[in-house]
Amino acid sequence: MSFFDYFRAQKKKSAQVAKERLQVIVARERVTRNGPDYLPLLQEELLAVIRKYVEVDNDAVTIQLDREGDCEVLELNITLPDGRGR
Amino acid sequence: MSFFDYFRAQKKKSAQVAKERLQVIVARERVTRNGPDYLPLLQEELLAVIRKYVEVDNDAVTIQLDREGDCEVLELNITLPDGRGR
Repeated sequence: MSFFDYFRAQKKKSAQVAKERLQVIVARERVTRNGPDYLPLLQEELLAVIRKYVEVDNDAVTIQLDREGDCEVLELNITLPDGRGR
Repeated sequence: MSFFDYFRAQKKKSAQVAKERLQVIVARERVTRNGPDYLPLLQEELLAVIRKYVEVDNDAVTIQLDREGDCEVLELNITLPDGRGR
């Protein structure tokens, strides 16, 4: 399965109207429990990078942080006004 | 399907030995062809953000940029030495 399938399936689930969408996912798999837990810290910095290129309203962003066993996934979903780039 | 399934399935495919893995995905769905194509520009900036938290060797990164219809996906796969954080 390609990531395209995953990305498109999510759209169907949320039954959104046609809008430009941007999804940023950071997934980490640890072998040991060593090292700092930096995924939560990344979200603001990633948004700052995205904002250099497109206008992102705060209420257009949903952020989710999930853990499952040794995997941790940070997911940012952003809805953009049609084709609005900087 | 959750993203965890996608993330884990990729590991099996590549049959890697146990190492810490980090995957960054930026997916964009456009409604129109308007606006600049900024996904390729993001890769260096995203890596710079990650490098604030973990040491990433250049040869530990594979970058892929794919298009399929109105979707565009930038994927960074990073292999890290066991639990090596900054």
